[in-house]
Parts: sequence; C-alpha cells; structure tokens
Amino acid sequence: MRTLEWDYSRTELRMINQRLLPARFEINTYQDYRDVAAAIRDMVVRGAPAIGAAAGFGMALAACHSGAQSLPDLKAELHRAADVLKVARPTAVNLGWAVQRMLTVIDSQSGTVEDLRRRTVDEAVRIADEDVEINHRMAHFGAELIQDGDTIIHHCNTGALAVVDWGTALGVIRQAYADGKKIKVLVDETRPRLQGSRLTAWELQQYGIPYEIISDGAAGYFLRSGQAQKVFFGADRVAANGDVANKVGSYMLALAAHANHVPVYSVFPISSVDLSLENGDLIPIEERDEDEVLGIQFHGEPVAPQGAHARNPAFDVTPHHLFTGWVTEKGIVYPPFKKNLLRLMAQQ
Amino acid sequence: MRTLEWDYSRTELRMINQRLLPARFEINTYQDYRDVAAAIRDMVVRGAPAIGAAAGFGMALAACHSGAQSLPDLKAELHRAADVLKVARPTAVNLGWAVQRMLTVIDSQSGTVEDLRRRTVDEAVRIADEDVEINHRMAHFGAELIQDGDTIIHHCNTGALAVVDWGTALGVIRQAYADGKKIKVLVDETRPRLQGSRLTAWELQQYGIPYEIISDGAAGYFLRSGQAQKVFFGADRVAANGDVANKVGSYMLALAAHANHVPVYSVFPISSVDLSLENGDLIPIEERDEDEVLGIQFHGEPVAPQGAHARNPAFDVTPHHLFTGWVTEKGIVYPPFKKNLLRLMAQQ
Repeated sequence: MRTLEWDYSRTELRMINQRLLPARFEINTYQDYRDVAAAIRDMVVRGAPAIGAAAGFGMALAACHSGAQSLPDLKAELHRAADVLKVARPTAVNLGWAVQRMLTVIDSQSGTVEDLRRRTVDEAVRIADEDVEINHRMAHFGAELIQDGDTIIHHCNTGALAVVDWGTALGVIRQAYADGKKIKVLVDETRPRLQGSRLTAWELQQYGIPYEIISDGAAGYFLRSGQAQKVFFGADRVAANGDVANKVGSYMLALAAHANHVPVYSVFPISSVDLSLENGDLIPIEERDEDEVLGIQFHGEPVAPQGAHARNPAFDVTPHHLFTGWVTEKGIVYPPFKKNLLRLMAQQ
Repeated sequence: MRTLEWDYSRTELRMINQRLLPARFEINTYQDYRDVAAAIRDMVVRGAPAIGAAAGFGMALAACHSGAQSLPDLKAELHRAADVLKVARPTAVNLGWAVQRMLTVIDSQSGTVEDLRRRTVDEAVRIADEDVEINHRMAHFGAELIQDGDTIIHHCNTGALAVVDWGTALGVIRQAYADGKKIKVLVDETRPRLQGSRLTAWELQQYGIPYEIISDGAAGYFLRSGQAQKVFFGADRVAANGDVANKVGSYMLALAAHANHVPVYSVFPISSVDLSLENGDLIPIEERDEDEVLGIQFHGEPVAPQGAHARNPAFDVTPHHLFTGWVTEKGIVYPPFKKNLLRLMAQQ
C-alpha cells in the first residue's frame, strides 16, 4: 500500500503509523481533519511531500464530513480547516503549498455542495498521484548520478514513507539499484527521532538494498577516509537563493562531504522551492519537544539525568554553495543555482 | 571520590562504574589486572587519561597479587600483564603511555619482590596524582579563553569521569564557571554511547553549571545561527603534525565551527601527543560492536529493524588546520601547531 491512501468506500484517509515502525506495521484511519493535523504534528506521517498530501486529504475530509448546507457555508468551513492544517508543522513548504492549492480549487468552485465535496477529493487524489509521478521522474534523472560500486550516505528518511509512494533521495537510490548498479547505503540514524534507523533501514531491508546504519557523527569518518562516494538527502524547503532546509544534521553532513570533495545532492520536487524567502536564514525552523532528545533508553536505562533539559531544532539550513547539484522532476540543477532554478521554474 | 582510587588497606582498585550513570552510582572493585583490562574494554572506565591511570593501577594489581617468588619471575609476569592491558583499547595513546611508564620503572628496579610491589603502587599513584595536577593547570590556562556570557558546545565527556579528577575540556569549563563567568554549555549527546547526555550532563548538574543537551547533528544549527561562541573537546591521541583523534563526531563539530568562524579548542596533556605518527591518518581507529548503535530504544521500542547491521567507528580524526588552539598543561598552543608543539615538548 501507499504511505497514505484515500478510501472512497468509507470516505476516510488511511495512513501508515510511522511512529511504530520498525517494531509494528499499523494503519491509522481518519475521518476528522483535526485528527489529520494532529497526526502531522505528532509525526504519524512525516516527510515533506507526505505531509503535503496528508493536508490535501485533510481538506477533502473536512469537505466530505462537513454538515454545511450551502456552498458559502462549506467554503467558510474549509477555510477554517485550512487554517488548522497549515500550521500543523512550520518548516516544510509542501504543507502550505498543498493547502493553498486546495483553497484555490475550492474558491473557484460553483455548483452544489456535493460538487464541491467531489472536487476536493479529486484534487487531493491528484496531488497524491502527481507526487508519485514526480518521484519516478526525479528517480530516473538522479539515478544517472550514481556509479556502479558507490557507497552513498543518506540522511533521515526520504523513501516511500516520506512521500505518497517511491521516494525522493531514497527513490533515486532505489532506481539506481533497480537499474542493476551494485551500491551500498550508509544510513545516518538521524537523531533525535531516528528516521534513518527506524524507517530508512526498514525500507532498504524490504527492497533488498545493502545498507549499514551509522551514528550521525560518524559520517565525517567515512567521508574523510574515502569510504563514501556520494551524499543524498531531501529538502523541506528551498529558499530563492538555493539554501536548503532539511532534517537537522543535513548541514554538518554536507559540510563534511564538501570538505572531502564528495558530491552532495538534494532531491526535491519544484514545489519545495519558496521564492518568497530570499535566503535560508528566513526559513522558520521548528523546535520540537525536548523529550525527543531525552526520551531514549541505552541498555534499558534513561540516557539523561533527571531534570535535564534539551534543545531540539528539527531542521537546519544547508547553504547552497555546499551542493554539487539538485535532482528535481525537471532534471538535475547545477550551480549557479539561483539562475538555473529560475530558468527551470519558468519552464513550468 | 575520584573516578578511580587505590585502596591501600584492601590492595584493590575502586572505580565508578560509568556504564550505569546517570541511572545508578556504583563503585566496582578490582584485584585482578585482567578484570581491569576488561573494564577498560567494556567502558566501565573511559576517557583517555582515566584509561591511562586505570592501566597503571592494573599493573600495580598485577604486582601485588602475583605469586612470583623472585624478582625476574615477577618482572616477567608484569610484562605479560602489560601485554594484556595495553591492547584493551587501541586509540588513546595514554593507555600505552602509562603501561610503558610502569614498565620502565619495573625494569630498572632491583631489590626484593616486595620492593618492586611497593614501587609499582607508588608509580601508579603518581600517574594518577600527576593527572589531577595537570588537569588543574590546563583548566587555569584554558579558562582565559572563555568570555563572560559564552555558550560553549562540548563533545563527549571530558570531565572528572574521563580523568582521575577535575577534567580536561570540561575542566576548563568548570574553571571558567568557578571564576565567576556566566556561561552555558550545549552538551552534544555524543552517539553512540551517549557520554554527553549520560555523563557530562550528570556532571554539570552536580556542579550547578547551566546546560542543555542537543543531538550531535544539531550543533551545526546552533553554530550557523550564532548561538554558540566556543567549541571545546578533548583528545585521545595527537599526531606529530597536530591532527587530533577524538570521540567520533568531533571532526564534524570542528568543521561546522570552523565554517562559522567559531573558535575550536582541544584540551589534552602533552602525554597525548604521539610523535611516532606523522599524521592523523596513521592513528588506529577502534571500531566497536554494532550493538552500541543498534541497541537503544525509542518510545520503548527497538530503533532498528531485526537483522540490521551497523558500522561503529568510536573515534575520528580532526585535521590540525581546523583548530584555533590547544590547551595543554604547559600553556595554550597556537598555529603553526607542529612547530609550536615541538618547542613546547622540548621544554620538558
């Protein structure tokens, strides 16, 4: 199944509960858009493209399960739902992008309440389907960058679980493997929430792709000793100048790769670009609960003394000059990023 | 009490069991040097200076609890003990340094078996006492580098638990705080064994020094956003050209600080310098059991899928050009490190 799917017969959204993997595979179902917002906040669903798709379906749920009797009433209710959904998490641009796309369709709609319900479901399904198609296009462009025999360091989870299906950076790696290239992945465990060891390792195991987990701080060792040939990760938001916000730790990984002349690629759909922000310093960085840092156990014991506090920024910004290139659904982008990015976007 | 102490009345070594902190404070006692070697390997005791002192006491235990009746027999037995102790862990130079210092004393000894026993205990105690004195000297030199109001990022544990007493890099921070400077420490949790959140946070709590724990990958965020003014860590072995081997993750931290013009200092006694190694690439890097990476729990659940494998280098090498300076017991060393290092060592 896809990471998130619309169930037409029950008018509900089904999502893999990513909080429980790899220990348990469970599907959650949603009929209330407020529960979808909570699921985004609590990271039942995570990954910028998956969050966008979930928000689209959240809007569809709001339309289908509303008691509104008139089109203006329903539209007003959907605007209220949009306000709730778009603030569920701050950093990824896809969330706001998907909600805005839904509102644009909703606002332009005339006809019956039932027409509007059908139209919101269609649009949410379209966002999800387009995401899958975009992923496959990125994968085919990006796979060309990977050589037979490469060891690739990957950060966080950018696989099927981060999107509707297939994956962004991990989708590129899957494609290279599917093309017959002998590759290995060094999986950053990705503290604090361990999306690397919990989700990426679990996915790679399903696909049969060789991998080993490393602690995030060990990437520098492998890069400096010539044991890794490529670095790939995703993006949660890209500023106009090409700075990339992504899962915390990406910046240090890119620095270490760059210092050792190892190519660094970010893989993202064009919708991740936010031209309204001049540079990466303007991207809002979500700071999450300290329990994500403090709440793990080592040898079954707590890892921090009682009363300890933590800071927990969930993302960081990698300046554009550290990237070798980007993989988008329109092709690979090389420096100068700003100029080439604008040229690419003009092609839309 | 000190991290490790000689008990004259029971002729045994007492060490804080650092595997259990911060959950439980327990003291282990040792009468067999082979158990001390195992304690070093299993990290009941860790930190390069503490390992050196433990090995010295291990030699003293071997002498005191030997059944040898003649001086040649006892010396031969002590050489066998030295062979066991010095390979307990490969990266820190202090281990081999302390064992060699003990052997030099042992080999030069004449007199009775009892004289030799007394002499080995004296020398082991001297190594430990000198370590404490050296720590205080480093702390006083290093504290001058810290300004009132600084936020300092610290990696691994270099406090009293890493040495016999007081600390190296954390000793500098303690001294600055004791001098009345208002400072805050951002404590790298230091995966995989979490010496930062388990040990450094526990120590800082005892000392009343304000701190917050961060995941290792988050240091780049704080450095790039101007929220940290200094980086301090220790050293396990320093090559002739000034490259520093230290706990894995130190290299990426130094890179991120250097890229953001934040000063980076390594704090170590001169005995950590290994002139026999031309550069850091020649320092042996210990690779430990994969269970240290895979064996934590998140929300009480395993963090990696069954059958997952990990790579676990315990150290990495930070090239000398990334350091602003070093703090030693002979003063602060600035670039060019190789030249100034040799000048300093010639002063001995």
